[in-house]
Amino acid sequence: MPQPDIDRTNPWKPVHKSEVFDCRYFVTRSDSVRHRAGEPRPYTHIRMKYFGIAVVPIDEDGSTTLIGQYRYVLDRFTWEVPRGGGRLDRPPVDSAKAELSEETGYRADHWLHLFNASASPGVTDEIAPCFVAWGLRQGEPHPDPVEQLVRRRIPFRDAVTMALSGEIGDLASIASILGINTRLGRGELPPDLMALLREEASSG
Amino acid sequence: MPQPDIDRTNPWKPVHKSEVFDCRYFVTRSDSVRHRAGEPRPYTHIRMKYFGIAVVPIDEDGSTTLIGQYRYVLDRFTWEVPRGGGRLDRPPVDSAKAELSEETGYRADHWLHLFNASASPGVTDEIAPCFVAWGLRQGEPHPDPVEQLVRRRIPFRDAVTMALSGEIGDLASIASILGINTRLGRGELPPDLMALLREEASSG
Repeated sequence: MPQPDIDRTNPWKPVHKSEVFDCRYFVTRSDSVRHRAGEPRPYTHIRMKYFGIAVVPIDEDGSTTLIGQYRYVLDRFTWEVPRGGGRLDRPPVDSAKAELSEETGYRADHWLHLFNASASPGVTDEIAPCFVAWGLRQGEPHPDPVEQLVRRRIPFRDAVTMALSGEIGDLASIASILGINTRLGRGELPPDLMALLREEASSG
Repeated sequence: MPQPDIDRTNPWKPVHKSEVFDCRYFVTRSDSVRHRAGEPRPYTHIRMKYFGIAVVPIDEDGSTTLIGQYRYVLDRFTWEVPRGGGRLDRPPVDSAKAELSEETGYRADHWLHLFNASASPGVTDEIAPCFVAWGLRQGEPHPDPVEQLVRRRIPFRDAVTMALSGEIGDLASIASILGINTRLGRGELPPDLMALLREEASSG
């Protein structure tokens, strides 16, 4: 795609970086930064120690599996695709494989990376690597004992409907499901994955 | 859609809530929480004071406008749809109108709310209300002087391609663009908006 001729250089000059809170999962930073020739001003933000992984599993009849749980931070029950943290020093696909196995018991022969997307670029450096996995073999789920997860197997097209309606409510799940659906419509997925998804669509 | 018969009750019991850092935009909290009968354990997370608004403007020939900027927190140049913070006590659509006008100069006659999605439900309570706006009238942009924004007007179908490829790199922009595109494919948008988007698609 042609690119306009624009200035992509970094206009930010940190004057001082300060970690004001540190925990296992993230650091809260309050930096003093200068934008071009402006005066220094505070920029408070979050530096994550984990990726926010998302995986859409597609099984042999074109269904997917959602995870239901009560989210403490949101104070409500949510439906999401299998999600979990992945250490920054570990390849995201390895974390995705571990997370899928933990939450669903599935092991997948085929993995496609959809995108690495920013969760909230003004506030946090969190990156969500998003995947679709197929060629599934069922094993035993082994979730974190403190997690109380519900699994729900539904046709992929119903997951698309839930992503549009807000019933699936987190951005990484929505973007992943709609990304797969849009690539399917454009014929831009591996042929065996498209066959699974079209089988599901035509059998309903 | 039929719902499985599952337990959606809140299993979390906060033992102690502690604000460990407070700034204009968010609070960092380190709570002690009990999950069902488990032992109390720390749950550190972020409570936002702002929504993370996203707006996809569609103009009279079916193009959209992206915003380019160098993001300090990501340390790279990004393309996103017009985005900005909205106070929690203000209707999100009012913040969306203000943000669209600031960053693009557009005022829109028509607004459709796409979804309210969670940015990262394990870590933060940030909600991203996402909109599509059309019936645009051009005025003068008036961005925050410290923001150095680039505007880029492109056919909507090119924005879909950029969302799939990762060239548009934040989850709210990707979910919004793909949500509009999926609803267009299903015929689930207002007729005048679908006419704009189909006009664009057929003229290319």
